[in-house]
Amino acid sequence: MAKVKGFLYVVCFVGSIALNIFFVINYLFAVYANKQLSWSQRAAADAEAVASVSCSGHGRAYLDGLIVEEKPVCECNTCYEGPDCSQFLPDCAANADSGDPLFLEPFWMQHAESSAVLVAGWHRMSYVFADHTSISQVLVNHILKVHSIARNAITKGKYIVFGVGSTQLLSAAVFALSLKSSSPARVVAASPYYPVYKTQTDFFETVHFEFQGDALVLKNTSDSGENVIEFVTSPNNPDGHLRKAVLPSANAIYDRAYYWPHFTAIPAPADEDIMIFTISKLTGHAGSRFGWAIVKDKDVYLNMCEYFQLAEMGVSRDTQLRALQLLKVVLEGDGSEIFHFAYEKMRDRWEKISQTVSFSKRFTIQEIPPQYCNFFEKIRGPSPAYVWFKCEREEDTNCNDVLGAANIIGRSGSLFNSEDRYVRLSLLKSDDDFHLLLYRLKELVAREDGTETM
Amino acid sequence: MAKVKGFLYVVCFVGSIALNIFFVINYLFAVYANKQLSWSQRAAADAEAVASVSCSGHGRAYLDGLIVEEKPVCECNTCYEGPDCSQFLPDCAANADSGDPLFLEPFWMQHAESSAVLVAGWHRMSYVFADHTSISQVLVNHILKVHSIARNAITKGKYIVFGVGSTQLLSAAVFALSLKSSSPARVVAASPYYPVYKTQTDFFETVHFEFQGDALVLKNTSDSGENVIEFVTSPNNPDGHLRKAVLPSANAIYDRAYYWPHFTAIPAPADEDIMIFTISKLTGHAGSRFGWAIVKDKDVYLNMCEYFQLAEMGVSRDTQLRALQLLKVVLEGDGSEIFHFAYEKMRDRWEKISQTVSFSKRFTIQEIPPQYCNFFEKIRGPSPAYVWFKCEREEDTNCNDVLGAANIIGRSGSLFNSEDRYVRLSLLKSDDDFHLLLYRLKELVAREDGTETM
Repeated sequence: MAKVKGFLYVVCFVGSIALNIFFVINYLFAVYANKQLSWSQRAAADAEAVASVSCSGHGRAYLDGLIVEEKPVCECNTCYEGPDCSQFLPDCAANADSGDPLFLEPFWMQHAESSAVLVAGWHRMSYVFADHTSISQVLVNHILKVHSIARNAITKGKYIVFGVGSTQLLSAAVFALSLKSSSPARVVAASPYYPVYKTQTDFFETVHFEFQGDALVLKNTSDSGENVIEFVTSPNNPDGHLRKAVLPSANAIYDRAYYWPHFTAIPAPADEDIMIFTISKLTGHAGSRFGWAIVKDKDVYLNMCEYFQLAEMGVSRDTQLRALQLLKVVLEGDGSEIFHFAYEKMRDRWEKISQTVSFSKRFTIQEIPPQYCNFFEKIRGPSPAYVWFKCEREEDTNCNDVLGAANIIGRSGSLFNSEDRYVRLSLLKSDDDFHLLLYRLKELVAREDGTETM
Repeated sequence: MAKVKGFLYVVCFVGSIALNIFFVINYLFAVYANKQLSWSQRAAADAEAVASVSCSGHGRAYLDGLIVEEKPVCECNTCYEGPDCSQFLPDCAANADSGDPLFLEPFWMQHAESSAVLVAGWHRMSYVFADHTSISQVLVNHILKVHSIARNAITKGKYIVFGVGSTQLLSAAVFALSLKSSSPARVVAASPYYPVYKTQTDFFETVHFEFQGDALVLKNTSDSGENVIEFVTSPNNPDGHLRKAVLPSANAIYDRAYYWPHFTAIPAPADEDIMIFTISKLTGHAGSRFGWAIVKDKDVYLNMCEYFQLAEMGVSRDTQLRALQLLKVVLEGDGSEIFHFAYEKMRDRWEKISQTVSFSKRFTIQEIPPQYCNFFEKIRGPSPAYVWFKCEREEDTNCNDVLGAANIIGRSGSLFNSEDRYVRLSLLKSDDDFHLLLYRLKELVAREDGTETM
């Protein structure tokens, strides 16, 4: 009996010692692996606490959101409400208006660890980087790598300049090009075109340039196209078609926001004199307001640099730091994961919409032919960012009204300098938004059959 | 003997068990206190690893800096070099040119824990906040609180709009005001004035406004001052004087960048129609490019909103998040700590420069009278951001040349539309920069005595 007792004592003692050794090794390992955090602990814990708030998959809480009773408040997706966003609002409109690229949000939630970035209180307080510019060369290098993987742009021997989103780069490019000539430049774009080209150029009009509308109209006049600046969006917003400048002698600004495998085949790397890209349509971070231009001509580049220096002394270093972290994730592995993720999601959405509309005699959508893609190294089908939706019935001159009656919100064709028989429907938004759009479109097309058989 | 042995066994056993209990409680406490991080761990550890790189107190490594042999590289302060920034370059010029507000960097290093912010990969991807604006209302509320503590602005009943630094807000305000009238507005500022007013207004000149130089010249003509926009910097950059518009009938844009207890007495809260502030001169985060305007008139406010929407769709959400975290630190306790820190540092710098120049017959600096301060609730002496340095000798018409010969770099008076007999010397930079400036100035003044006694 005493022997058994003694044995048990020994087992317990050895077990206890072993447990202690385990704890000590664990502690030392944590220290070695730099897992014992000090000043960064609070910020990290705050971010995790906010991320752990449950919003039923139909919303999320943010670090800078409202706090009620010490708890971060859920911000719900459209058509959801309640403290945890669990209540669906059945009469809520399917909003396919904006180009908010939330379809990529799940990608970043899957890459929570690698995409997080902790900004120290003293991070980059200065106006300039060590090289006295306001542009992070490390970020430039990452951008160049992303282009070389996506095979969507020739960057060699060209200059890179950053802007507050591609929006600002468009304006800077017009300014820069317009300084090349003493007479005012005429700014044009072929219809249908992205509305900002007109609204922005009109608002910021100087003595050096003015907006003159449709490039096709200008082409059809006897005009030579001299001293013309042409915006070319390729693939085009709203219709997703790959485009070239219609005025060969114009100074073209290529808006390449959508020239990623997400949205289009990449037949060849783009090689224009001015190409504008944005993180908004690459990683989905529209809120970060970060874009870049790839510029061939040194004088144009220097004019653009002067623009950014005088407009706001460069892009926020906080934004540049975050963009860098996001691009590091994009470049992980062979750098193709985000392109596969985005392409598959966009293709799936397009196919579902296509199939739905194929049952309709009243509505059509744009046709985009399959094409060889330099990135996927095969022929691939369409996956555009937007549906260019058309009401075919003669009486349906305002297609957005027709959609509105079916509780769908789109963007009217006239905003793109086209007919209101067209409506742009965004495929870029959250899964919730897309599912509701699809559901409402299916209902609309089904009712059409009902009407016709009545 | 056996008894002693047995007793030792018991002690060891109890000790071991006690240690086990300690470890378990410690672990549970860490879990309870949310110190067991998951996805945020990597970002936090990366930030701490970079912060722990030793740069001898004369530089720092950044998260987005160069990495050589897997180690972040030190970015050294001016006049220091070497892998750990320990080598002082004795012939290096004292650079007092820029308004880089690095004097506040030590404050943020002291508040490492509270000022850090961790940005999740999916943070604020959308173009808009929940209220469909591009402005964080939570941040607006924090800004209002800071003003109420600093007692430097009346915000009640006014609108707030964000810009990419005060630089962009200046331009937006000119645009917004110029739309009030059909004839072109004349933009002026009283000399000496901040050079950006001219360069920016010239560069972005539309049919609605043009820069016309010195407000005092316009005042002295028979002109009524109608349809004039006047920039008023108060306290003034370069000379630190509190100012009012010289043209009472003009639309004034008050640049209040320096209207903080750091740099001036606050005789009363400012209450102008357009007041522009920037985080750059409040917290020292020039690199974040974040400013705000407080605007009385609704139409002007709406015009400015349109400007930001068309220019770039608002300020980066990453920047807004960081600004929020910084202002949370500013508001800690009674919210006065940063003002005391900044005031004491700037006053100390000013007094050292004043004392040095007081020994000179060749040079003078501006006089700023002591004044009652609404924030400190007492009469206080000057602590301006810049020295407005003057060469008094008739032959020293280019004072920057005189300083240059003494290895000091300042900004020439002519850039401020003043004489080159004046030079602006920045007191805002790092301790290293200031110490070198002071050292070189002392040398210069000492040499002056030597020359005179020869």
